Amino acid sequence: MATAYFMRRIIEMTDAANDQENIEMIIFNSPSIPDRTGFILGNNSEDPLPQIVDIANELERQNVDYIAIPCITAHFFHDRIAKSVYVPVSNGIKEAAEYLKKHNIKKVGIMATDGTAQTKLFDTVFKDYDIECLYPDTEAQKLVMSIIYDDVKAGKSVDMQEFCLAKKQLKQKGAEVIILGCTELSIVKRDNDVGPDVLDIIDVLAQDCVVKCAKLRPQYEKLITK
Amino acid sequence: MATAYFMRRIIEMTDAANDQENIEMIIFNSPSIPDRTGFILGNNSEDPLPQIVDIANELERQNVDYIAIPCITAHFFHDRIAKSVYVPVSNGIKEAAEYLKKHNIKKVGIMATDGTAQTKLFDTVFKDYDIECLYPDTEAQKLVMSIIYDDVKAGKSVDMQEFCLAKKQLKQKGAEVIILGCTELSIVKRDNDVGPDVLDIIDVLAQDCVVKCAKLRPQYEKLITK
Repeated sequence: MATAYFMRRIIEMTDAANDQENIEMIIFNSPSIPDRTGFILGNNSEDPLPQIVDIANELERQNVDYIAIPCITAHFFHDRIAKSVYVPVSNGIKEAAEYLKKHNIKKVGIMATDGTAQTKLFDTVFKDYDIECLYPDTEAQKLVMSIIYDDVKAGKSVDMQEFCLAKKQLKQKGAEVIILGCTELSIVKRDNDVGPDVLDIIDVLAQDCVVKCAKLRPQYEKLITK
Repeated sequence: MATAYFMRRIIEMTDAANDQENIEMIIFNSPSIPDRTGFILGNNSEDPLPQIVDIANELERQNVDYIAIPCITAHFFHDRIAKSVYVPVSNGIKEAAEYLKKHNIKKVGIMATDGTAQTKLFDTVFKDYDIECLYPDTEAQKLVMSIIYDDVKAGKSVDMQEFCLAKKQLKQKGAEVIILGCTELSIVKRDNDVGPDVLDIIDVLAQDCVVKCAKLRPQYEKLITK
């Protein structure tokens, strides 16, 4: 569902007056790829990387100009995926850091999977930009994981009280902006009011793709919710 | 945008408890394909069929089990596309006729492009099922075309008064059900309350795909809005 929403955001951000002015896309939606968090944390033994690399290679054979991966946890493998092809691969975490630096943000709260949190995927990139990453405590992180796996991935509606509790905790710890650092949380934002000061990584990835294709709608340069 | 929504509907209709239980999809989103209505009515000379056939062939090389085309006007070329590959190609118009017959519907109103209306794409199939097709008069058909081209395809918001006027006229002519016979009109339904007695061809296409893959959520067997 995150991939379908990513596709929608690219179209919404494109300054097209008819079908023909839109951006060409080839989408390999492969939900059978083994769970990324499960593999990173050692809970499932099947490595998702070979399937992801196969898709990157197939996209290259299809002559695409740019590759994006609308799964943040999969950014754990970003370097290895990028090295497997000549085509550039968008890095949603690095693009988010650039965007936050431009807006002079110093402290962010990360809502993401255990895989993304425990491997410090955001911290490793953000420290070079002097941006500090804050995380929910153990109980609130369980709520975030439950929203991602028990609700969105299972096609169920989301308990917004749980979402707001985790967000509130991050704000109390001093986060200026909350990062929706898992693309399933973008679906929560699609369907609910997530409140101000939220940056959705799907929007960052989509804006990056549309800018690289030079077809941006000007209103999408501001991505943090007001 | 219709393709992104089609992808979303397939996922919503799938009875999956996690990523891995969802249906694999490969999507060629090729907005540069020449306008179908324009070609059918002789307004643009570039034939969209070769590009559509190329994509069907590429999907076959990718070993897909089933092909769907989330553009109803392109169903004008359905026979020729279906003959170009061994893989079966979903026919949204035929599936709609089967569905309407099962629900004992005898008269439908068609909201679609001029290309679909003037080539009697629905009539040709529906007459074998004893279903009569009704169309908006010239002025109301202009409103439907304006919603499709000036609003949805251009990424603008839709004037629901225009939509309701065309729908009301079809109901007054005796239509039991209104067919959203252009996938851009599905975007109108996504974002607005279109009222009762509407059947969206994207839902028919998506249900057909999900049934063929035997992963249907039971609530999606009823597709006409209440």
